[in-house]
Amino acid sequence: MTEAGPGPLIWVNGERQSVSDRHVSARDRGFMLADGVFETMRVHRGVVFRLDRHLSRLTTGLVTLGIPAPASLGAWVLAALRSFDGPDASIRMTVTRGIGPSGVAPPDHTRPTVVVMLSSMPVFPPAVYSDGLSAHVAAGRRNEHATTAGLKTLAYTDAVVALLEAQRTGANEALFLDTQSHCSEASSSNLFVWIGGALVTPPTSCAALPGITRAAVLEIARQLGMRSEERVMTLDELFAADEAFLTSSLRGVAPLVKVDGRTIGAGAPGEVTKRLAREYTDLVTRECGG
Amino acid sequence: MTEAGPGPLIWVNGERQSVSDRHVSARDRGFMLADGVFETMRVHRGVVFRLDRHLSRLTTGLVTLGIPAPASLGAWVLAALRSFDGPDASIRMTVTRGIGPSGVAPPDHTRPTVVVMLSSMPVFPPAVYSDGLSAHVAAGRRNEHATTAGLKTLAYTDAVVALLEAQRTGANEALFLDTQSHCSEASSSNLFVWIGGALVTPPTSCAALPGITRAAVLEIARQLGMRSEERVMTLDELFAADEAFLTSSLRGVAPLVKVDGRTIGAGAPGEVTKRLAREYTDLVTRECGG
Repeated sequence: MTEAGPGPLIWVNGERQSVSDRHVSARDRGFMLADGVFETMRVHRGVVFRLDRHLSRLTTGLVTLGIPAPASLGAWVLAALRSFDGPDASIRMTVTRGIGPSGVAPPDHTRPTVVVMLSSMPVFPPAVYSDGLSAHVAAGRRNEHATTAGLKTLAYTDAVVALLEAQRTGANEALFLDTQSHCSEASSSNLFVWIGGALVTPPTSCAALPGITRAAVLEIARQLGMRSEERVMTLDELFAADEAFLTSSLRGVAPLVKVDGRTIGAGAPGEVTKRLAREYTDLVTRECGG
Repeated sequence: MTEAGPGPLIWVNGERQSVSDRHVSARDRGFMLADGVFETMRVHRGVVFRLDRHLSRLTTGLVTLGIPAPASLGAWVLAALRSFDGPDASIRMTVTRGIGPSGVAPPDHTRPTVVVMLSSMPVFPPAVYSDGLSAHVAAGRRNEHATTAGLKTLAYTDAVVALLEAQRTGANEALFLDTQSHCSEASSSNLFVWIGGALVTPPTSCAALPGITRAAVLEIARQLGMRSEERVMTLDELFAADEAFLTSSLRGVAPLVKVDGRTIGAGAPGEVTKRLAREYTDLVTRECGG
């Protein structure tokens, strides 16, 4: 994806910053130790899609990390939105434990660092939706045995490495298995397959993030009367699926048509995928007051 | 541990910074995605202990992450040392992919960010060495199936969470098993046991970092004619060990006398541990020209 327009707007602890500035201390534990969590949210017509759910997931992460949740998280997002008069946008909110001494042990008292970054909506190539994505199964595995599994912590190193590995094989995306060889998720999106007349997505016990878009798609499927299951899924089931797609806040519902060089279903975006993509777009429009 | 004296000295890409400044962009991928690696090095009498090995491990990490290694890494450490006229110190070098757009995919061209931080040597309570440490076995597991296993990436979130969990149980340290329940390492140090007349440490295939101090201790053991083994080790073996200790660049050789409330060996620093600790101190002194 590419970012259109000028650089993002950036706030640190509620204060507006210049994009060219340096914004955080090199002693910030977010920078030193990935000691923090973040959310990437979609803005449509000036409204964040399901802000409450993003903040709730962020707060769950902060609790596990023992970082006191700053009171003004929601207010800071809304303040950022007031500076915004464009079409769609994305907002990333990062909360770290703040500045601390070297070493893994957190200090007794810290003041969390909150960064809000508002960017124009990334532009995905139209082929993502019309032709679908290809994925490479990453050599590394997701760790379903981590205490932070299912949290959106800053520790995205493995996702970056997997995506680079995928790109070297000519694929668009990296797909992770967990340590028991079950399907988990893609580098920063959830996996769905349509197989045997049911919509299946790996459970969070396979280290899949409880995605906001994932939840919305499951909700839509239920409303449409589709059978849907969160359950353990093997790579062979993915290969045997009629359709597959990936979900994330910014890219939405993106068809997945090839994995490790093998065609999924007809090798083109399927009818169920296209239907869910349309319904999801409608849901965003509806909830954001469009 | 506590840090004595004034704040650290900080350089960003070779430029000296004020400690109170903000030093890096919130768009730095080190801050956003833990997209980088680091080293923590011990300085004795103005000399970094085994700087070449730290830089070599750092470079291995950069290669896996596909980050071009800046040419001046060694020179920047040496420049930092010239500003230093105290006794022992620690140096942390962090290298990230640099500023990039949002999203996991790295941009084609980035300029890595290099932060060098020189701090006074942390002061560990004397009881760490005289009485020994207690450890709690972390609920979360280390992932030996990650492509980044064995690299010192910025993704220390799990270590922070495990250490907090340990502190809540009253223990000083967190000990990780890997996903197959083999002993791996502590939150930021390697594990050794003395059992059946041999020194045993988990192999890097159990997601143990190839520690610089770990390598030095194995070297010393060989020189002393001790039998030493890098091999898979269970928690039961740790409980049955005659002695145990943890190694890291700053804390050196630290006795481990209790794990999950169970006493290891005599429950006090053992003779082998004390001998290796002395020999390690001598090695550092000798190699740093003291």
